[in-house]
Amino acid sequence: MNFNATLDGIKTYEAGKPIELVVREYGVEPKDIVKLASNENPYGTSPKVSQAVRDIADKMFLYPDDSMYVLKEGLAKKFKVNENEIIIGAGSDQVIEFAVHAKLNAKAKVLMNSITFAMYEIYARHVGAQIIRTQSREHDLEEFYQLYLEHKPEMIFICTPNNPTGDAIERDALLDFLRKIDKDTLVVVDGAYMEYAAFKDDSKAVSAQELIREFSNVLYLGTFSKAYGLGGMRTGYGIANTDVIKAFYKLRPPFNITTLSLEAATKALEDEAFVQDCIAKNFEQMKVYEAFADEMGLEIIPSYTNFVTICLNEGQSSSDISLSLLKKGMIVRDLKGYALNAIRVTVGTKKENERFFELFKEVVSS
Amino acid sequence: MNFNATLDGIKTYEAGKPIELVVREYGVEPKDIVKLASNENPYGTSPKVSQAVRDIADKMFLYPDDSMYVLKEGLAKKFKVNENEIIIGAGSDQVIEFAVHAKLNAKAKVLMNSITFAMYEIYARHVGAQIIRTQSREHDLEEFYQLYLEHKPEMIFICTPNNPTGDAIERDALLDFLRKIDKDTLVVVDGAYMEYAAFKDDSKAVSAQELIREFSNVLYLGTFSKAYGLGGMRTGYGIANTDVIKAFYKLRPPFNITTLSLEAATKALEDEAFVQDCIAKNFEQMKVYEAFADEMGLEIIPSYTNFVTICLNEGQSSSDISLSLLKKGMIVRDLKGYALNAIRVTVGTKKENERFFELFKEVVSS
Repeated sequence: MNFNATLDGIKTYEAGKPIELVVREYGVEPKDIVKLASNENPYGTSPKVSQAVRDIADKMFLYPDDSMYVLKEGLAKKFKVNENEIIIGAGSDQVIEFAVHAKLNAKAKVLMNSITFAMYEIYARHVGAQIIRTQSREHDLEEFYQLYLEHKPEMIFICTPNNPTGDAIERDALLDFLRKIDKDTLVVVDGAYMEYAAFKDDSKAVSAQELIREFSNVLYLGTFSKAYGLGGMRTGYGIANTDVIKAFYKLRPPFNITTLSLEAATKALEDEAFVQDCIAKNFEQMKVYEAFADEMGLEIIPSYTNFVTICLNEGQSSSDISLSLLKKGMIVRDLKGYALNAIRVTVGTKKENERFFELFKEVVSS
Repeated sequence: MNFNATLDGIKTYEAGKPIELVVREYGVEPKDIVKLASNENPYGTSPKVSQAVRDIADKMFLYPDDSMYVLKEGLAKKFKVNENEIIIGAGSDQVIEFAVHAKLNAKAKVLMNSITFAMYEIYARHVGAQIIRTQSREHDLEEFYQLYLEHKPEMIFICTPNNPTGDAIERDALLDFLRKIDKDTLVVVDGAYMEYAAFKDDSKAVSAQELIREFSNVLYLGTFSKAYGLGGMRTGYGIANTDVIKAFYKLRPPFNITTLSLEAATKALEDEAFVQDCIAKNFEQMKVYEAFADEMGLEIIPSYTNFVTICLNEGQSSSDISLSLLKKGMIVRDLKGYALNAIRVTVGTKKENERFFELFKEVVSS
């Protein structure tokens, strides 16, 4: 059977390997597996959220309130915006999908960083758009601007903090950049890890409210998958001007998050203390990674997230090291697919990190 | 901001009104609300499934196993097909979306029944495809064939049993029809309610295995939202030739169902007794609806599902009746948007149905 030609150019997203797969493929006991591959919150889900979900587990037969009223109310309060400036997605991924389908097509161009979240390209390829990338590893807004002038893209992706490198942009630099962009270019500011950046360094804290009040063409993305400890519940959101949100609503399938996701996300917003505590622990543990990298003579890209990107030295192969770690039950992310000889490691709990240091040493010295 | 012109033609899907909205808008007490609008399983979720989900509620921070191995294994067993002939979707809706994006574009045509599941058209409009519809209320495969010859559509949707009318096609007639269709036309056979039809009348039971063994161009859709009691968990699936499944995988976002949905669906397949018991009760209660319609002098379209479509008489307005029922806390579906002066009512529990009969009588006599 023939399919649309756009499919030919699509590479499937390579997800972090799940624990179940390592059990099946390498015969490692589940108890011996540590997964530091997908930047889930290593401190888990807030116990209050888990309890709330248990309490309504027998409501799984009911579709969720498709208006998602209570969740949007909670987000409106957190971000000091209006409910009609918010759209909920099955992960912020789905909001990226809405944005791409609303704005791009086979004649359009989209600008993004050389190394950034893989789903931007995958969705853009779905509609056959032309992808323009910067050269520099970290976001260089001057380079972005020159490429913007040259190509006049319909859409720009800015990921801050960036995944999979962990670096973040200065808020003021971002605002200056946005002021130079035409109002018909949709700029997506993906803040999936913003809670971490805001905790570590106020100058990197980008406010969705500030963005959408000044810029009618900016879409801010957030997620419950990282700091909020709900990676498995597929809930994210977009915040933008009501006209943008209305357009996206036309592309939103009904009931796009689950009944339990709606409850979990709503309750997660009410336990901010849990989130802040997890973030504080994260940066305590990150110091240990920095010390470890120093000890090993390796570069870590300064990270404003819950992961570290460890750049390997010449003669070391990120793929070999990842595979050796995997066979020992340690799941990390090989960044070879991003043209980086590096591994991305989620900053786990103290115990998980110590296990990583131990196994990493074993692997590089063998 | 300008968006793609295809957005102009999209009407947002109107979901069944949630209980929360009736509480907010009409001030009805939650305990007095009966929702018979979205064809959820009125007997709820299997207690075994609810318990399994409670048991892993603290795993919500972890992304699901993106291979969905255990669930596909369970489905492969149920349908006697191979795991690589299955794709999981966030509801079967999402598999419809994959099919549309894989096969249709602004130059393509798609054929569907005059009255059928609204998401077919909505997704087709996303890509700007031309929509061809039959005239007859029930699926008339001869009419489908004539339109097929005339228009040579890239894709055909067959919904059996059909939503929102409840009627179903004879299996043998469907197979004869499929034998006449070119192998480059993708035919979607949506069996969201097939478990009900198969229980009521074997001649309407369409087997996914039989379909995909004979036809390389047929996609069978199923869901956990109806008979399996998991409407709120957004889990469905497509079964087709591996080439079709491979193409769809290119369009599948990673982690497209939640960690708890994966567990729930997997466990739901293991409690077939619960499902069959719910279906048996459904058809017992459907008899009561048929008797009620006789008593009221109203037509019910013979239904092979868990809902009945009650056609109203001249002088009665489906919109007025639906609204009057809503204000009394009874949520049903007005089919005016489908150009039918009819309401669609989920066959609920004995108590829910009695409440419907009582309120319906009140409303039509006032």
